[in-house]
Amino acid sequence: MAYIAVLGHGVVGSGVLEVLTIHTESIAKRAKERIEVKRILDLREFPGLAYSGCFTKDFADILSDAEIGIVVECMGGLHPAYDYVRACLENGKSVVTSNKELVAEKGAELLALAQKNNLNFLFEASVGGGIPIIRPISQCLAANEVSEIAGILNGTTNFILTKMIREHMDFSQALKLAQELGYAERDPSADVEGTDACRKICILASLAFGTHVYPNCVYTEGITGVTLEDVDFADVWGGVIKLIGSVKRLENGQVHIMVCPMFVHRGSQLASVDDVFNGILVRGDVTGDVVFYGKGAGKLPTASAVVADVIDCVKHMAARKYLFWEDAKPGFVADPNVAEVTAYVRASAETGDAAFTAAQEIFGGENVKRLLANTPKPEEAGFVVDGETEASLAEKLGALAARGVRVESRIRISDY
Amino acid sequence: MAYIAVLGHGVVGSGVLEVLTIHTESIAKRAKERIEVKRILDLREFPGLAYSGCFTKDFADILSDAEIGIVVECMGGLHPAYDYVRACLENGKSVVTSNKELVAEKGAELLALAQKNNLNFLFEASVGGGIPIIRPISQCLAANEVSEIAGILNGTTNFILTKMIREHMDFSQALKLAQELGYAERDPSADVEGTDACRKICILASLAFGTHVYPNCVYTEGITGVTLEDVDFADVWGGVIKLIGSVKRLENGQVHIMVCPMFVHRGSQLASVDDVFNGILVRGDVTGDVVFYGKGAGKLPTASAVVADVIDCVKHMAARKYLFWEDAKPGFVADPNVAEVTAYVRASAETGDAAFTAAQEIFGGENVKRLLANTPKPEEAGFVVDGETEASLAEKLGALAARGVRVESRIRISDY
Repeated sequence: MAYIAVLGHGVVGSGVLEVLTIHTESIAKRAKERIEVKRILDLREFPGLAYSGCFTKDFADILSDAEIGIVVECMGGLHPAYDYVRACLENGKSVVTSNKELVAEKGAELLALAQKNNLNFLFEASVGGGIPIIRPISQCLAANEVSEIAGILNGTTNFILTKMIREHMDFSQALKLAQELGYAERDPSADVEGTDACRKICILASLAFGTHVYPNCVYTEGITGVTLEDVDFADVWGGVIKLIGSVKRLENGQVHIMVCPMFVHRGSQLASVDDVFNGILVRGDVTGDVVFYGKGAGKLPTASAVVADVIDCVKHMAARKYLFWEDAKPGFVADPNVAEVTAYVRASAETGDAAFTAAQEIFGGENVKRLLANTPKPEEAGFVVDGETEASLAEKLGALAARGVRVESRIRISDY
Repeated sequence: MAYIAVLGHGVVGSGVLEVLTIHTESIAKRAKERIEVKRILDLREFPGLAYSGCFTKDFADILSDAEIGIVVECMGGLHPAYDYVRACLENGKSVVTSNKELVAEKGAELLALAQKNNLNFLFEASVGGGIPIIRPISQCLAANEVSEIAGILNGTTNFILTKMIREHMDFSQALKLAQELGYAERDPSADVEGTDACRKICILASLAFGTHVYPNCVYTEGITGVTLEDVDFADVWGGVIKLIGSVKRLENGQVHIMVCPMFVHRGSQLASVDDVFNGILVRGDVTGDVVFYGKGAGKLPTASAVVADVIDCVKHMAARKYLFWEDAKPGFVADPNVAEVTAYVRASAETGDAAFTAAQEIFGGENVKRLLANTPKPEEAGFVVDGETEASLAEKLGALAARGVRVESRIRISDY
């Protein structure tokens, strides 16, 4: 019998209990051992459940219980989750977590601690919910050098963008609907500002490239500025707007990492990832492009990824899994300003023609291609600018503004 | 140092050598040990290679070498691959293979032998080439009950269908192009008749449902009968034709397994899997639909999956991986004739209207919906038939033929 404890009986934590209950027999068969939840930490009361007797409000009850070999952390947030997880790893307990903030902010430290104490620290559920992605990157693609990862990593924003694209809702209408359906929180900023996607691409980057990338080092732009006009121009260009977290290894050994809305060509596998689904493209030097698609969030998909980690943990109590990356090092994350960029720009002036003429003069005629909107506004022009760096693009957009042309939008164009 | 041997220096075998050479350092880091190819079995001569000295024509050189702990089988075909793999597993050597025929025909037996001798028998490369699929199903989805798997499992036929759909080549033109590009063999029957896809869905079914399904138990239909008229009707219906291998668990515990061309709706993730790419949808009771996409074949993608297995093997020389299924049992595979089916039918008579009227009389007017072709032929009608079993559909198509209506095509319609 393998005894585990669950920290937090919220959406994911209660889902873990549910999955363990529904599939008790098949999980025991797969883990080669029965798994029993001995303790659940939550400050709230949950009377009337089959396992109500397991609850405790005191973490010490779990930490001091030598029978508990695996602790599942589903509290979310950095504190006290971090403190508890550290304590577990310092006291001989392996940890499974779904907490992307914890892994993105403290992954290197916790992995080092787990390694030192010959324990497991697993977090399949922290990225892509129920989509297997952490393990495939670390194992199946082990014979590859990953050159690039790009993903639709946040279901809430993808739902909003899908509604904007398919049903022509504007951003605030689509956000309201997402909130009504329970896909977005009352304070939606972590989703719509890109923070959540940023944590996830940090985890994937750290895993794929072996060096921790912290969220505060990553240029992050959300989708609050995306308008229906932009959606229309993306359509004319031949694609859709998606919030993409991406990381790419550069020839000099640095990584270019970024979260921002992007034009994605209709032919791309990522373009057809709609609604609350996630899709993650991993580009390997020998496998080429591999894409993983599925529900990126939700109680049961996320819980199933947690339980898969628990099963793996039970099977490897003796032999530690080799999931590891080094701590961050200076200069590993490239300055985003030097990156080359192709971007769509929407600008307005007295007339769209005047705006476009000014753009041609500033960028050089051959570097600007005009897009003709399906439903044009007389004062606006949309165009694609090529051959700039992030810095030179920003500078030239400044020059455009200085000439009285209003830059309404600037959205990068992806190459996958 | 972990010593391995490679059986067969063909496309995949030489790719394994290439991947191990390109990524020697990173692979050693991931495996926590250096991996050296000590012997390569091939009857041909390969002078002038860095590793030409490793070749042998005598399998006994490998079998008797106690230093060799892992044997990589890339010969393909059933004999002598099966005999060599058995001998390895009987003599303390773990085996990694890319040979889908071997796994589909002998998987249960070889897994049992590996288990008995506490060795690994791994075959990630046997399905989906470089796409991680065997390990995600066995590990990441361990907390799920898989209810259904459906995949585009053969790149050659997908390339041919893509050319038919996009460029309106007919089947034989597209096949010829595939042969010229090296995607199809001179004798293309294993691909175009569905044999290759059948082996792969057998492996996935065995893995997901724990009981071996042999290829000769699987109803298999290839794409040789698919015409441009069918492609046109699929377009009108709202989708594309794909060769799908599928397996579904029924409520009575049996599985419904089949390989056949199908109409796939344009909104499906499988519809956008084009050219030589593969896509595999895994439906789990708690994760929902997860889709894996990538290059299903090719030297380096396949080799990278083989090498990932080798790395896993090196890391688990002591602790065996739990990959296992039972041997086949009678009645596990459901009689395909009792399955319910929705199908597209193309029929011709003196006029299309006459053909359709006959169909309405035989199937009942409410169960038949006519499709209007983009480029109609006056003597043909295309329609969708609902509410039949495979048996009753076949019977009624027979009745249609008996009334002088020629059934030109019958293609099943998928629900994913």
